[in-house]
Amino acid sequence: MTDENAKQSPNQPLSTEPYKGVRDFYPEDMFVQNHIFGAMRSAVESFGFLEYGASILEPTELYKAKSGEEIVNDQTYSFKDRGDRDVTLRPEMTPTITRMIAARRRELSTPIRWYSIPNLFRYEKPQRGRLREHFQLNVDLFGVENINAEIEVVSVAAAIMKKFGAKDDQYIIRVNSRKILNYLLNEVLKLDTEKAYKAMKLIDRKDKMPKDEFKTQADDLIGSKSHIFISLLNATSIDDFKKRSMDEASSDIMGVEELANLLDTLKKLGINNAIFDPTLARGFDYYTGIVFEVYDTDARNPRALFGGGRFDDLLSVFGTDKLPAVGFGMGDVGINNFLETHNLLPEYAPKTKLAICTIGQGIDIAAFEFASKLRTHGVSVAIDATDRKAGQKIQAAVKQSIPYVTFIGEKELASKTFTIKELETGGETICSGEQDIIDFIKK
Amino acid sequence: MTDENAKQSPNQPLSTEPYKGVRDFYPEDMFVQNHIFGAMRSAVESFGFLEYGASILEPTELYKAKSGEEIVNDQTYSFKDRGDRDVTLRPEMTPTITRMIAARRRELSTPIRWYSIPNLFRYEKPQRGRLREHFQLNVDLFGVENINAEIEVVSVAAAIMKKFGAKDDQYIIRVNSRKILNYLLNEVLKLDTEKAYKAMKLIDRKDKMPKDEFKTQADDLIGSKSHIFISLLNATSIDDFKKRSMDEASSDIMGVEELANLLDTLKKLGINNAIFDPTLARGFDYYTGIVFEVYDTDARNPRALFGGGRFDDLLSVFGTDKLPAVGFGMGDVGINNFLETHNLLPEYAPKTKLAICTIGQGIDIAAFEFASKLRTHGVSVAIDATDRKAGQKIQAAVKQSIPYVTFIGEKELASKTFTIKELETGGETICSGEQDIIDFIKK
Repeated sequence: MTDENAKQSPNQPLSTEPYKGVRDFYPEDMFVQNHIFGAMRSAVESFGFLEYGASILEPTELYKAKSGEEIVNDQTYSFKDRGDRDVTLRPEMTPTITRMIAARRRELSTPIRWYSIPNLFRYEKPQRGRLREHFQLNVDLFGVENINAEIEVVSVAAAIMKKFGAKDDQYIIRVNSRKILNYLLNEVLKLDTEKAYKAMKLIDRKDKMPKDEFKTQADDLIGSKSHIFISLLNATSIDDFKKRSMDEASSDIMGVEELANLLDTLKKLGINNAIFDPTLARGFDYYTGIVFEVYDTDARNPRALFGGGRFDDLLSVFGTDKLPAVGFGMGDVGINNFLETHNLLPEYAPKTKLAICTIGQGIDIAAFEFASKLRTHGVSVAIDATDRKAGQKIQAAVKQSIPYVTFIGEKELASKTFTIKELETGGETICSGEQDIIDFIKK
Repeated sequence: MTDENAKQSPNQPLSTEPYKGVRDFYPEDMFVQNHIFGAMRSAVESFGFLEYGASILEPTELYKAKSGEEIVNDQTYSFKDRGDRDVTLRPEMTPTITRMIAARRRELSTPIRWYSIPNLFRYEKPQRGRLREHFQLNVDLFGVENINAEIEVVSVAAAIMKKFGAKDDQYIIRVNSRKILNYLLNEVLKLDTEKAYKAMKLIDRKDKMPKDEFKTQADDLIGSKSHIFISLLNATSIDDFKKRSMDEASSDIMGVEELANLLDTLKKLGINNAIFDPTLARGFDYYTGIVFEVYDTDARNPRALFGGGRFDDLLSVFGTDKLPAVGFGMGDVGINNFLETHNLLPEYAPKTKLAICTIGQGIDIAAFEFASKLRTHGVSVAIDATDRKAGQKIQAAVKQSIPYVTFIGEKELASKTFTIKELETGGETICSGEQDIIDFIKK
């Protein structure tokens, strides 16, 4: 801060920083954000998904429900309002959509296809790919019991990635089933609830620990049957998994055929980068069937980009009938990193196409009227009617990446002849009348 | 709650209500919301305004700054985060945009045209036109000192109303100037700061109290010169105001010529419903010049729909150079009421154009592939691949307002002949192949 500035504000000047872990979106940032949201919208709407929305503020009890117990922890933004109500800035959208659907359970016709791009909050240390506030596309399909729901929802995810310009080898879709894991832990290994819980946690960490460390922990937890556990989790494909389950456990594992069916169908639909991953656990909260996660194949983005799965039991906390559901949540921060890594982000270009600069000072009604005509023909026009010099006006248009500029004075209006300057090349084009300008700029 | 439902949830079922004073947006509501936001975006972008955004969570000190002292009161949602920082859910957007511009004061080229449609929070009793959370288009033009800024900003407001389909006689733009009021109170009436403050409050309440009550209070406050005060505030036009100020105060009032200029220019630009209103005070916070408010002419919506004005001094709290600014904020709740009152809201129509229903059970890859082809040609297709009967599938499409439905089975795919049923009329059209369907639905 300079002394001169200090004089203007006798008190300590306010900080211009946003709150920690959230983002300011300057027009250039918003351009990227709108590009990402636009691709998401266009892909999901082509599948018939309808947008819904809700407030970021929810009663805290929504997150205390049985199904979401783990969410209300030290990562939520919870507080009391002035009426002593416990409220929370939503950390995820699923409880909200479930609440909304439960409220109109009887009126709504299935299949229900809804999407939203809410902002979500969690209190944690900001780091690459994780911020305190992020936006997350939520895509949910309610009311389809059969595997067609999973086929569609994974297809939607792939369609969005395609819309972003991502190639098949730039990301991978890992798929597993909670049915398989539950059957393995409960029926084959016959673990009690506590051990099954710990085994699930161990599966979740498998890829992050050395092989022998994993074996030691598996042996400790599971005992004599741990070789089955280890062997099955090392399966490299569905067929390999089936073979191992017959070899090691003399048993078919429930859920495997369904998963095989899904992967087979996805391949037939041209989705070639979906693979079986028996170690994919995806949390403990509300999934009941197929789960999937999408990963960047570039090692710079090791976290899951996004994921989802089937959750058939969530509505029960509202006392309404069950409703099968499959969905996913795709965060903007991870996707932004992905697109940046693979050079898939477009170059900044404002929607403003033409700067009309007035000549001279004061009010120039003719310039306003002229701009107005161009606007009704779909050309976005910014007027520079400041009292500055011509050079400064051009400079400002250049800095704002406005592609074309023209000066309008009495001479131009009388002769209906306008010189349009293309700022990137410096080239000039003479246009006769508005229509000529409109045609030139739109071409 | 029925007993049957109670069985599903042993605990008290969760409420499906949203938090008090905020809204759930079901797809039909979101359709209206997107219509409103779409009209706003399209109008402001045609004037070269660029979208920006920021988090709803801001440091509380942002609202404690001198310029915004009145905002941090018992109407804000303020709390401490887990790191003991004071944070607030933004009650308005102006402090945020000012913060963002101050942060890049030297890099940004003027004129800066930015817009955003943030959600804002205020803790108050929900009532018609006022909710605890609402969305508000914010349009701000920074860096233009002369009256061209006001001309443009009021033009933008009128362009949005036109985009909504509003006619000139359905709303009125009341315009005044803080310069006029300040000059009247400080220079003509020579009131001290406290009395000037009270007089401003009295002006603000003038239209809400009986004439004689207003006179009594004006006499009490201002004394012998109160006839000047009353006379000027009763002026019915700019010319009348000028005449009265010469008659009563033997003085030209500062700011009047500028305002006359603005109204005159607006008229020349085809904005015929802008009028001078000497009683328009529009709060006390940061306005420094022209202020305006837009009112519905229908008495059912007596509150101001929206308003704005010039605020040239806001950046100083950040210790940066001054920057002239004119802007306005247009809330969605008031606009929604306005559009409803004047029958300007469109009928609900989902983007989904066609429901493709599978025949029989299980996975139908051909139906998925078929839908996929239509989607690549821009037709939004929802598949109904549930195991339900044909009649139920049609019923669901009708309830979801999907205009067309077709059934796809082996026969249809083999013959490439598809019967497209229009659900509103019940009419059927035979299409041969995908292109025929695409052409039919797009026409």
